[in-house]
Amino acid sequence: MIRPADEGDVEALIRLIHDLAEFERSPASVMIEPEQLRTALFGESPAAHAHVAAEGGRVLGMAIWFRNFSTWTGRSGIYLEDLYVRPEARGRGIGRALIAELAAIAHRAGYGRLDWSVLRWNKSAIGFYESLGAVPMDEWTGYRLSGEALAALGSTDHREE
Amino acid sequence: MIRPADEGDVEALIRLIHDLAEFERSPASVMIEPEQLRTALFGESPAAHAHVAAEGGRVLGMAIWFRNFSTWTGRSGIYLEDLYVRPEARGRGIGRALIAELAAIAHRAGYGRLDWSVLRWNKSAIGFYESLGAVPMDEWTGYRLSGEALAALGSTDHREE
Repeated sequence: MIRPADEGDVEALIRLIHDLAEFERSPASVMIEPEQLRTALFGESPAAHAHVAAEGGRVLGMAIWFRNFSTWTGRSGIYLEDLYVRPEARGRGIGRALIAELAAIAHRAGYGRLDWSVLRWNKSAIGFYESLGAVPMDEWTGYRLSGEALAALGSTDHREE
Repeated sequence: MIRPADEGDVEALIRLIHDLAEFERSPASVMIEPEQLRTALFGESPAAHAHVAAEGGRVLGMAIWFRNFSTWTGRSGIYLEDLYVRPEARGRGIGRALIAELAAIAHRAGYGRLDWSVLRWNKSAIGFYESLGAVPMDEWTGYRLSGEALAALGSTDHREE
């Protein structure tokens, strides 16, 4: 039921990405085009990987992830960018099976960690994650530079400063 | 002064990783061996990249990073794993120059974001990041599965459940 995504899953994955963003109350944040996802997952130098939960040719859930690296452990890990299960397929252990698949990949590869982020208000997801033994990294805050601030800093010739 | 790290920098980078962990009050968390860092940065399939600030053959600061991917933007980005400047070299704009170098890489590659994490108590770093136009992602919390919990989930044959 859980398998690596293939190129035929791209349209279904795009729909699930939109569904997840709607659930996360940010539907307007999704700008990804199918061709971008296809290149990211199946291009020459994949930027990400995806697994799907499928039943009878229908994609019920997905995990999109990429490899990260820890300078503390000295090992790679997995960062789970998106985990989503269609509402009508919940309660069947699909989310757990998707995370377990990534944990198995990490385990086989000798990776030390599986990391992800959750919206603070999403208490049901948090309860589920804690039931798996995951721990909150709440002494840390993420910071992001994007848009004009990123462009401004990135086009400065700092070597001249 | 800012340049990509080369293999001759590995020992200096390891020292800076230890110094940063000490500053972050977790000196015992660092288990990385030089050979692991060498493989991660300069092996067949690099898991990470590093830039250094060097002066007269001495490494004064470092940025260790890897490529991530956003399903919202459809684009890759940069995740800055470690940023560190030696205490005696602070106040000279080296941290800013290292971040600006990554912003320039992101800008040239068409990446949409530069992300990192900061310890909540590190107010001076937070003030510096905000001066660059970075914004806190404080509606999100990181979660981590590691150690025995990761091994237990990863060695379960969830397909049988």
